[in-house]
Amino acid sequence: MADIFGDRMAAASAAVGNCAVVGLDPHLDRLPAHLRARYAGRSGVSFRQEAAAAVLEFNQVVIAAVRGVVPAIKPQFAFYEELGAPGFAVLEETCALAREAGLIIIADAKRGDIASTAAAYARSILAADGPFYADSVTVNPWMGADTLDPFISVCEQTGGGIFVLVRTTNPGSAFLQHHGTPRAAHQVARVLADKGAALTGTSGMSSVGAVVGAMTGDEASELRKLMPGAWFLVPGVGAQGGSEDDAVAGSRTDGLGCLVNSSRGVLYPAPADVDAYNKDPMQWIQRAASAHAGRFIVDV
Amino acid sequence: MADIFGDRMAAASAAVGNCAVVGLDPHLDRLPAHLRARYAGRSGVSFRQEAAAAVLEFNQVVIAAVRGVVPAIKPQFAFYEELGAPGFAVLEETCALAREAGLIIIADAKRGDIASTAAAYARSILAADGPFYADSVTVNPWMGADTLDPFISVCEQTGGGIFVLVRTTNPGSAFLQHHGTPRAAHQVARVLADKGAALTGTSGMSSVGAVVGAMTGDEASELRKLMPGAWFLVPGVGAQGGSEDDAVAGSRTDGLGCLVNSSRGVLYPAPADVDAYNKDPMQWIQRAASAHAGRFIVDV
Repeated sequence: MADIFGDRMAAASAAVGNCAVVGLDPHLDRLPAHLRARYAGRSGVSFRQEAAAAVLEFNQVVIAAVRGVVPAIKPQFAFYEELGAPGFAVLEETCALAREAGLIIIADAKRGDIASTAAAYARSILAADGPFYADSVTVNPWMGADTLDPFISVCEQTGGGIFVLVRTTNPGSAFLQHHGTPRAAHQVARVLADKGAALTGTSGMSSVGAVVGAMTGDEASELRKLMPGAWFLVPGVGAQGGSEDDAVAGSRTDGLGCLVNSSRGVLYPAPADVDAYNKDPMQWIQRAASAHAGRFIVDV
Repeated sequence: MADIFGDRMAAASAAVGNCAVVGLDPHLDRLPAHLRARYAGRSGVSFRQEAAAAVLEFNQVVIAAVRGVVPAIKPQFAFYEELGAPGFAVLEETCALAREAGLIIIADAKRGDIASTAAAYARSILAADGPFYADSVTVNPWMGADTLDPFISVCEQTGGGIFVLVRTTNPGSAFLQHHGTPRAAHQVARVLADKGAALTGTSGMSSVGAVVGAMTGDEASELRKLMPGAWFLVPGVGAQGGSEDDAVAGSRTDGLGCLVNSSRGVLYPAPADVDAYNKDPMQWIQRAASAHAGRFIVDV
């Protein structure tokens, strides 16, 4: 068996002293001006090709800016899919570049399907010879606990990890996640703890993690009790409005456990900063990433 | 507003006289022998490129074989993702070819995400200028009813449709789908009926459909009562073992309502048929598609 993702994530976090994640979400209307100029006014295939080339250059800047600053990056697959095959080619290259830079890759693909189909997704993203070889992937549990197993099988072989959608913070998230007694989210959490037990490393952290958004109240700490060894991937801070305290409400007593993501807050400037950003995007992003990292220091 | 997907699907079904769907799932170990020879023994990027080229040729055969025989095809995105960017290039081309052939395209991508991310997925697959322009897409509701809205908004503009995962037939499917009282699947069904009401055409069918697997018992007919105007996309027959009667248990009294998918049963031969298949894959697939279509005749 390969190294356990839970341990690799802990080591990467310890190496830079924080548990911040930068989301690699190319919003085409917000890239630096010189890159936007490349695809402005184009449409169709020509737009997608030029935009993809600009995104690759942007991602190279982001990776150079955040390496050694945060332990992990999280490319959001939707923004690459929107650019079609050229977008996926850039995503392949981005994963390779991030790996070379020593960053842990959290592929935010939210995949979920049955049997041989789930296995195909798992191989695509978690296998060393897969096109989008990443350290971990976000997975949707709605189709059933059995649909997680093809991903976990590949994790056992490759040292990869999964982050299963347990509790999100979008306005309608409670609709199914809070449904029933006990809540559906808690049912998922119990299954994840069970499946993660055999994939827990010396750090005490497992390869079966959970997406748990930044929420007020004691919901995150309740989920932590159910999943003591799970890495929580925490979206919902920064542009999405969650507070820093909420973001780490699900931390363990040793300070580990919450990987706090920021995408737009690190990658793109507020209106007042646009000129400085366009002048030197790498410096601007590096400062923003450092500020984000500084809010989520871990000392373990 | 564009033509309503519910009506377009009804018209396509009426035109060929059946409600069968062929799943376009390229299983690389089962393609015709002369195509498998192209990527045998290769690995990495070279494997993915050659396999993708073979898949495109296979899909051209399948599309030629099933056009005019069934109303719709359903490419499963996982098998294209596994081939990386070349796989997605083939998927782009496959969607364009299927459209030219007059087939309704059901993009089996099982996407699901929030806000701007969901919108990016919706544009990728449902917008006329999106790379994977299809008539409809499968969507996962776990993150909340609000996460369906970006897809429905695009459907309103383009005449597209969605099939939301309500009830699947994999071994662990009841874990969340049957959780709570009323069952979570029924909660989803009620929301879909509500969202579909405004997108219902003269055929009585709406653009907000549901994935409802082929199950024994009265579960499908109960879901039909909750969603009278929804197209049900029905996996689980053929290789997955569901019976023909189970597959159409959710039909309306007018005979409409269930789109019954078969993938492996139409695309690949049983061991005894391999020689005939390799000799003339198009003829073999056309016969298998005709047999599949003949099991699900509609007369409306």
